[in-house]
Amino acid sequence: MNKLTVKEEDGTNYSRLGGRALTSKIIHDEVPATCHPLGAHNKLIFATGLLTGSGASSADRYSVGAKSPLTGGIKEANAGGITGLTLGKLGIKALVFENIRDDFKIIHLSKDGVQFADATPILGKDLSETATWLRDSYGKHVAVWLIGVSGEQKMNLAAIAGQDKDGEPTRFNGRGGLGAVAGSKGIKAIVIDASGVEKNRPKDKERFRQALKQYHSWLMETPGTAKVLPELGTAALVETTNALGALPTRNFSIGSMEDYKNITGETLRKTIMERGGEGTPTHACMPGCIIRCSNVYVNKAGKKVTGPIEYENIGLLGSNLDISDLDDIAELNRLCNEYGIDTIETGGALGVLMAQNVISFGDAKAAIEALHEVKKGSPLGRIIGSGADIIGKIYGEPHVPTVKGQTMPAYDPRAVKGLGVTYATSPMGADHTAGQTVRVQINHHAPEGQVNVSKNAQTVNTIWDHLGMCMFSSGAVQNRWDILADLVSGYSGEPFTGDDMLKIANETLKLEHTFNRRAGFTKAQDKLPDYFYEEENKASKTVFDVPANELETIGVTRNDL
Amino acid sequence: MNKLTVKEEDGTNYSRLGGRALTSKIIHDEVPATCHPLGAHNKLIFATGLLTGSGASSADRYSVGAKSPLTGGIKEANAGGITGLTLGKLGIKALVFENIRDDFKIIHLSKDGVQFADATPILGKDLSETATWLRDSYGKHVAVWLIGVSGEQKMNLAAIAGQDKDGEPTRFNGRGGLGAVAGSKGIKAIVIDASGVEKNRPKDKERFRQALKQYHSWLMETPGTAKVLPELGTAALVETTNALGALPTRNFSIGSMEDYKNITGETLRKTIMERGGEGTPTHACMPGCIIRCSNVYVNKAGKKVTGPIEYENIGLLGSNLDISDLDDIAELNRLCNEYGIDTIETGGALGVLMAQNVISFGDAKAAIEALHEVKKGSPLGRIIGSGADIIGKIYGEPHVPTVKGQTMPAYDPRAVKGLGVTYATSPMGADHTAGQTVRVQINHHAPEGQVNVSKNAQTVNTIWDHLGMCMFSSGAVQNRWDILADLVSGYSGEPFTGDDMLKIANETLKLEHTFNRRAGFTKAQDKLPDYFYEEENKASKTVFDVPANELETIGVTRNDL
Repeated sequence: MNKLTVKEEDGTNYSRLGGRALTSKIIHDEVPATCHPLGAHNKLIFATGLLTGSGASSADRYSVGAKSPLTGGIKEANAGGITGLTLGKLGIKALVFENIRDDFKIIHLSKDGVQFADATPILGKDLSETATWLRDSYGKHVAVWLIGVSGEQKMNLAAIAGQDKDGEPTRFNGRGGLGAVAGSKGIKAIVIDASGVEKNRPKDKERFRQALKQYHSWLMETPGTAKVLPELGTAALVETTNALGALPTRNFSIGSMEDYKNITGETLRKTIMERGGEGTPTHACMPGCIIRCSNVYVNKAGKKVTGPIEYENIGLLGSNLDISDLDDIAELNRLCNEYGIDTIETGGALGVLMAQNVISFGDAKAAIEALHEVKKGSPLGRIIGSGADIIGKIYGEPHVPTVKGQTMPAYDPRAVKGLGVTYATSPMGADHTAGQTVRVQINHHAPEGQVNVSKNAQTVNTIWDHLGMCMFSSGAVQNRWDILADLVSGYSGEPFTGDDMLKIANETLKLEHTFNRRAGFTKAQDKLPDYFYEEENKASKTVFDVPANELETIGVTRNDL
Repeated sequence: MNKLTVKEEDGTNYSRLGGRALTSKIIHDEVPATCHPLGAHNKLIFATGLLTGSGASSADRYSVGAKSPLTGGIKEANAGGITGLTLGKLGIKALVFENIRDDFKIIHLSKDGVQFADATPILGKDLSETATWLRDSYGKHVAVWLIGVSGEQKMNLAAIAGQDKDGEPTRFNGRGGLGAVAGSKGIKAIVIDASGVEKNRPKDKERFRQALKQYHSWLMETPGTAKVLPELGTAALVETTNALGALPTRNFSIGSMEDYKNITGETLRKTIMERGGEGTPTHACMPGCIIRCSNVYVNKAGKKVTGPIEYENIGLLGSNLDISDLDDIAELNRLCNEYGIDTIETGGALGVLMAQNVISFGDAKAAIEALHEVKKGSPLGRIIGSGADIIGKIYGEPHVPTVKGQTMPAYDPRAVKGLGVTYATSPMGADHTAGQTVRVQINHHAPEGQVNVSKNAQTVNTIWDHLGMCMFSSGAVQNRWDILADLVSGYSGEPFTGDDMLKIANETLKLEHTFNRRAGFTKAQDKLPDYFYEEENKASKTVFDVPANELETIGVTRNDL
């Protein structure tokens, strides 16, 4: 077994990079693109955003990056909660994990340094139990990252979990199997203790204060961030996408669901409110967040079941499986959280199994039982754990809603074509957070203009990922990035402009495409599965018809690489 | 369900192309490279070699080609037996299957045309039972192609079976999952009835006779084809590769086996001879074959178990699994044949499952039980059916001996480096028949010269695949291709030179690489898995160290594409 060594490095060279800009830079520079994602040459990087810990609303996110075992390309997944924030408090910009090992460790970070402990006591347990054990062992004040039974088994849909402000391990770096990379490196949990450390304060207080005031006022003025998201959460989208014919239903075969009223944001809110008890339709994952899009879902007795139930979870674990009972969706959601698996990839996986009649569409009981197999690591559990794309290969099913091996989030690309462009061309594979276009004012059914819309969204999302900001603030900020630059300048004391942010975002995308190109990606992978071009989505009455030569202008074949 | 239509096309434009040269030409010209291998746009092509049916020894092979669901690239797999020969008797140069369907048909070809029948009565049955049913239904004189339960389930390791001269369905187009492509197109069996058809005779009898005499005399003079292969079969190689440290053992972790004496060609022959009964160590799959490398293996009572037991099967189902009892290997071999699955891919799959302790190394009973799951289509059966590469992804195992998704045949590329070059650079993925170098006089452990050796072997194998010739004749013919050209000229009556053959072979390789490049392959896929470069094979004391820049001169990045 490899010796455990810790090396501290000066981050000065990276002072202008945070979040995804930093993880992608390190991966591009240091990871051989063709290496095995679960082998010794891959690196796993946790990096705080430039604004993480600044006190700005919705800006405490952090990124995790690596070469992905799911896509085979570069990957970044970010999340909120308090763990990134706590890492930043220690003055640590990034954690970089190298090499692999066979046993599992708990890594403890504090102002006194790093310590390693045997993780055996928490192996095989559910995430909530593990998080409780860690807080019982290390103190209620620590923040944790951890992987679940899926990450221990190096499954493609394994996520990394951080904790929210209430200590729940429910904030996920969900996509791309980064939990499997953590598993390959023997990282079961990272415990961060920031006690005895001074709070980071803005270097240029006045500048920061001014910018913050402006930024927060926008968040509080804009209907999306001030009212819709706090009241209905992301589930507000169900009405929108169902009307567009973009709500994935029955393994992305159609874009609307007869029973969709059962799973809307309104119904979700009403259910939680009526049941009372521990439930709340409005919950912040990060302290001081104005948007508070999260929620806590409860059973009929008012006892907490899971949280948050988000739009993507409803779309993938609900309509995509022809399941329209919120209690069933909540139980699937809970199991995903307990096992540390990505809800989107899990819904994609179950959808393909349903298309193959291994489980029946709409059979929530069977879907729940199937998820239990993930924990057991039985053959069926391993199959689910490998993700939708591989399940398609195992069962010979051509209807598999993936790009670069990754399941599409809950927007049928025939009905939100800008997202189809993002799925096809993003270095991240099918990922709405890499270039969300559903809120753009455009005819989502028309092919025209979607490449520009996606290109812009991909850049904006990269800026947000760089700063550690939640993408939900982008509707309020729009393209007034200078305020964000002022926040960064005020916080860091270093000059920073909106143009700098744009430049770094574009440079980041370029590094990511370059990595993927080295890893073997070509325009042949910058496409959707055949059936989205050929089989009409009967709800939207459209196929995906953005021309291939337009896609080539922004994907891995773009001219400036 | 799609209507069944039959279209007859004039083959004049393709008169100089046969076997692999023809299948690859059609795939290159007509199949969209990024299409789903099991979707409507893929084509499945059966093509006879230019010498098939001519009466030349070991020259009745035929090729099957398609885009492979296993590799995602172009694929050709050829086999002997009598079915290709019988197709040629009907004057049919190639069968091209388009589109997909959900039900299964039996396709009957005779001089009176094509007929389709419902295949329901033979679904789910073992191959030997199916072949018997077909001969009982259509007459003992017909020749058949068929797929097994694996092809019905569209598994990646599904093969297509033809029959040998005794009517046994044991000649396999094994590699690349072509049986799954047949399954996707609803082809359960093709029955060919050549009764009432005149035998094809050489157009230039004298020229053909002269060349044939020369060619046959070489086969009868050369120790390999005259003595070693007829006596010991391909299993003669066990001694050679074990001594080289190239015999894959315990999931390609080392290249020699302690008990290798139990599985040598000598032991195989001795066992068959001693047991007597229905067994024979020397058997021809094609009528008139001088080499007769096949065999029939029997149990202690002299009853037939399976046949043939070949070197690759011993290496992959034996040493690679740490199994050294010929009766166990024979039973695994038998199950592969009955279920219509590729023995190499199956051995690779079981090897990775053993590396993951899903089954224990050396546990033949468990391996046999696991194979039964393939027929059942249980989750474990589906996992095995997906092939070694995907199993690596399902279990997070980096030690997976595949290139372009396909399991290496029974030569550790650290110890036979020319084959390592072939594995890395052939358009076919890891495939010894695409460029066999083990019999070349070279230091197989040294990196020097291997690229040239492989390049030459890749060309020669392509020539052989074009003509429908068995690669085992190449040792006798060496580079005296003019005799082969004379055979072709004599048989077809058209001018044909050795240079023509060379040119067509090189053009075929070029088309194949071009297809793969369009399908998304780059030099990133022209490599072996990391561990062959980094972890020493303790038997050969070598790693694979042929420089990457040398590989680039002959793979998908070669300059002339």
